[in-house]
Amino acid sequence: MEFVVVGAGMAGAFLALALGRQGHTVTVYERRPDPRVNAVHTTSMNLGLSERGLKALERLGLRQEITRHVSPMRGRLVHNQDKSLRFSTYGDGGILAIQRHDLGVQLIEAATRSANVRFVFDTRCVGIDKDLPAADFVSESGNAFTVTPDVIVGADGAFSVVRKHMQRDERADFHQEFLDWGWRELHIPAAADGSHRMADDVFHLWPRGETMMFAHPNLDGSFTCSCVLPFEGPRSFDALRTSDDVESLFRELFPDVLDLVPDVGKVFLDQPTFKLVTTRTSPWHHDGKVVLIGDACHAVYPFLAQGMNAAFEDGLELADSFAARPDSPRAAVERFYQRRKPHTDALAEMSRQNFAELRDTVRSPGVRLEKACDVVLEKVLRHRWMPLHAMITNTTMPYADARAKAHRQRRILQGAAAAIGAVALGGLIRRFR
Amino acid sequence: MEFVVVGAGMAGAFLALALGRQGHTVTVYERRPDPRVNAVHTTSMNLGLSERGLKALERLGLRQEITRHVSPMRGRLVHNQDKSLRFSTYGDGGILAIQRHDLGVQLIEAATRSANVRFVFDTRCVGIDKDLPAADFVSESGNAFTVTPDVIVGADGAFSVVRKHMQRDERADFHQEFLDWGWRELHIPAAADGSHRMADDVFHLWPRGETMMFAHPNLDGSFTCSCVLPFEGPRSFDALRTSDDVESLFRELFPDVLDLVPDVGKVFLDQPTFKLVTTRTSPWHHDGKVVLIGDACHAVYPFLAQGMNAAFEDGLELADSFAARPDSPRAAVERFYQRRKPHTDALAEMSRQNFAELRDTVRSPGVRLEKACDVVLEKVLRHRWMPLHAMITNTTMPYADARAKAHRQRRILQGAAAAIGAVALGGLIRRFR
Ligand SMILES: Cc1cc2nc3c(=O)[nH]c(=O)nc-3n(C[C@H](O)[C@H](O)[C@H](O)COP(=O)(O)OP(=O)(O)OC[C@H]3O[C@@H](n4cnc5c(N)ncnc54)[C@H](O)[C@@H]3O)c2cc1C
Ligand SMILES: Cc1cc2nc3c(=O)[nH]c(=O)nc-3n(C[C@H](O)[C@H](O)[C@H](O)COP(=O)(O)OP(=O)(O)OC[C@H]3O[C@@H](n4cnc5c(N)ncnc54)[C@H](O)[C@@H]3O)c2cc1C
Repeated sequence: MEFVVVGAGMAGAFLALALGRQGHTVTVYERRPDPRVNAVHTTSMNLGLSERGLKALERLGLRQEITRHVSPMRGRLVHNQDKSLRFSTYGDGGILAIQRHDLGVQLIEAATRSANVRFVFDTRCVGIDKDLPAADFVSESGNAFTVTPDVIVGADGAFSVVRKHMQRDERADFHQEFLDWGWRELHIPAAADGSHRMADDVFHLWPRGETMMFAHPNLDGSFTCSCVLPFEGPRSFDALRTSDDVESLFRELFPDVLDLVPDVGKVFLDQPTFKLVTTRTSPWHHDGKVVLIGDACHAVYPFLAQGMNAAFEDGLELADSFAARPDSPRAAVERFYQRRKPHTDALAEMSRQNFAELRDTVRSPGVRLEKACDVVLEKVLRHRWMPLHAMITNTTMPYADARAKAHRQRRILQGAAAAIGAVALGGLIRRFR
Repeated sequence: MEFVVVGAGMAGAFLALALGRQGHTVTVYERRPDPRVNAVHTTSMNLGLSERGLKALERLGLRQEITRHVSPMRGRLVHNQDKSLRFSTYGDGGILAIQRHDLGVQLIEAATRSANVRFVFDTRCVGIDKDLPAADFVSESGNAFTVTPDVIVGADGAFSVVRKHMQRDERADFHQEFLDWGWRELHIPAAADGSHRMADDVFHLWPRGETMMFAHPNLDGSFTCSCVLPFEGPRSFDALRTSDDVESLFRELFPDVLDLVPDVGKVFLDQPTFKLVTTRTSPWHHDGKVVLIGDACHAVYPFLAQGMNAAFEDGLELADSFAARPDSPRAAVERFYQRRKPHTDALAEMSRQNFAELRDTVRSPGVRLEKACDVVLEKVLRHRWMPLHAMITNTTMPYADARAKAHRQRRILQGAAAAIGAVALGGLIRRFR
């Protein structure tokens, strides 16, 4: 079959690879320039790649190749305000930090090893006719053209143009919510000798209630930090107007980073602020002719570090669905939807909860106690008990199943606490009788 | 101040009236033709006008004038499938049925009695600049122009263009859901002598589970019926292809209507199908320069018959807010938002629940028993106990307060049931001891 994929982000590039391997003809159109020739290597965002993403890459024989370019993180290191540190392990597996740019280049290179896969850059989709189907593009140079493949895939991210056109005049459910928090990126350069200036094998976290920061190690000795702040209020992007404002915030909340980022005040103010959105929608497809994957149909808050991992799972499932129903594209996309939707909904919900939890890590001893019990029980009941975070990160258990299992475990934990309480109370009563 | 209102529907026409009375300059632009000159009096939709809407009209001195053109409905008459009937009263007040077209004309005529209010028809808003603010229009004849008032009001309904432009690039929450049910209108003409062919002082309801129909009386002896069916499935719009299909459905489910609508099969197939959408969003305003009212910021499922009533409440509150804060449009629109948002959210939720309830009226004796208790308690505890439907329809108690009171009452009812159950159980145990 002939596919047109809109967007060469994580979802689009991976899907092109998967479909190409199955012998389909695939053309990917991307509005940005080709990252392979784009020499300006931006010290770009990096992403956490975990078991789900790795398994998906493994299915396509890419696991080895890609894990040559990653920084493994074996757990989370919390930086307290008094500069003390607290480490908690990710358990088996851990998470790998990888630069978005590098991963993109590798996926595109792997995909184009199939002669039937082609990427066209600097070319923006401006609309589709979902019934033909046809997709309209305009290139950077102003050249407008239309293509008419068998299937159009919208892999064009959270603000998908394909989605908008596909759902026009349909009874489409659509939910979009933004966090009142945004983020800016900072860069901690390598030391003079090229080494890392903090532990290089962990995910660094500075939880400060309304404000937080985290950092991933890079292979070149540097770190990429994300500062998460509210948009409005006393300690917000809005309130930080001068270098002095920024520096005094860092001195108070992130004292151990202040010296690691040269000229942090000015650098911080020069960075753009990114928003954080979660979207949920249906339908994901139209008549076997148009289908959405990745952030185009389920953008989630990034604090569980799963969006790209889920996009890879989408890509495999969609390619598998076309293989399972070669007779009917309509049945294939419906199969894909049925198999993925409950899980991406669960992921969205867990990502939302996780943000609140992360924000409150500093405050809530209850959450911390539960987490501690979780980890102890995992040790004792090995393989029969697993903290939610471990199920999400270290396994490929479908998201909704992980959530259900975590609910069950939570009830057991609470039941046990109640039983212990009852026994204790019984003892107390006996003493006083 | 100078206002531009986009949309001369229920919300826009009412607001123009309210703002005009306060001496503001108001121009309303509407894409449709002027209903006053539009001689083709469509046997249009009619709407239930209840206490909230009436109180709002009363504040503007229009209650008398408008209630001259209505058909009062003192309760609900359920038509069972075996043609038997079951009546339940709406209590004090009741609901008035009014033709949307007539009400629109009256509001426009009342508004234009103020020399400072002007309506421009056949003119569509195609975009706004929210920061100037400026609004771009194109008239039916293709004439394009821009206006730059102090404030732009988006009263352009559920698919608001003003909202879309106002929220672009903002962190706007937006939720949209469609029912899997749609509706078509039918018309029961008057008898030969001009009289009504069913009771003319009630709201008629034919609940049939997945399918339902209801009818409002008109002043001219006719009725306007709405048939609500699923879009897909065995008994759906999709499944009704021929006149025979339609007639046999009516013969089975609505036998008493079959003979009242001449040529029902053909007429039904010729009607357009309307969708039912609920939307929830925020923000409702931008910087004191743009603000939304009515369906543009809160479309609800129509089964509680409150959308227009709520739009009138919006109009009053917005005009009052500009009067309360003449110093600051920004403070005025924020006041409006704070005062309305919790209530329109509550209305949306109750409208959603009400649809399920209405659909299940036939099936659930539990719901019916609770309703019966509600009505009895209302009689006994007069003014201290009130069924939810009565609070919504017969009072102006803010929606969220009505919902909270209903929750309290429900808990009392369930507590009482549990107590009665316990006493009964106690008796049983005593007997068997
Ligand atoms: C701050 C942050 C941190 C994150 N961290 C992680 C993490 O650690 N681990 C993880 O798994 N996920 C993470 N994610 C999520 C992850 O980035 C996304 O889920 C993932 O990138 C989604 O891939 P996608 O291809 O669907 O969308 P995108 O990566 O957004 O790609 C969409 C592509 O489509 C192109 N495009 C858009 N419109 C058009 C058009 N009209 N015509 C042509 N091309 C178009 C865009 O240029 C882009 O290249 C994070 C996200 C954020 C915001
Ligand atoms: C089947 C059904 C039954 C209902 N029954 C009841 C009931 O019994 N009681 C009740 O209170 N409510 C009822 N409602 C709800 C009620 O109809 C709406 O809540 C109410 O009409 C909302 O008023 P509005 O002015 O916000 O939107 P609308 O009435 O939709 O008015 C919007 C206006 O803006 C115009 N417009 C749109 N876009 C543009 C543009 N770009 N430029 C210029 N003009 C534009 C439109 O032409 C329209 O005139 C019902 C709704 C439905 C669907």
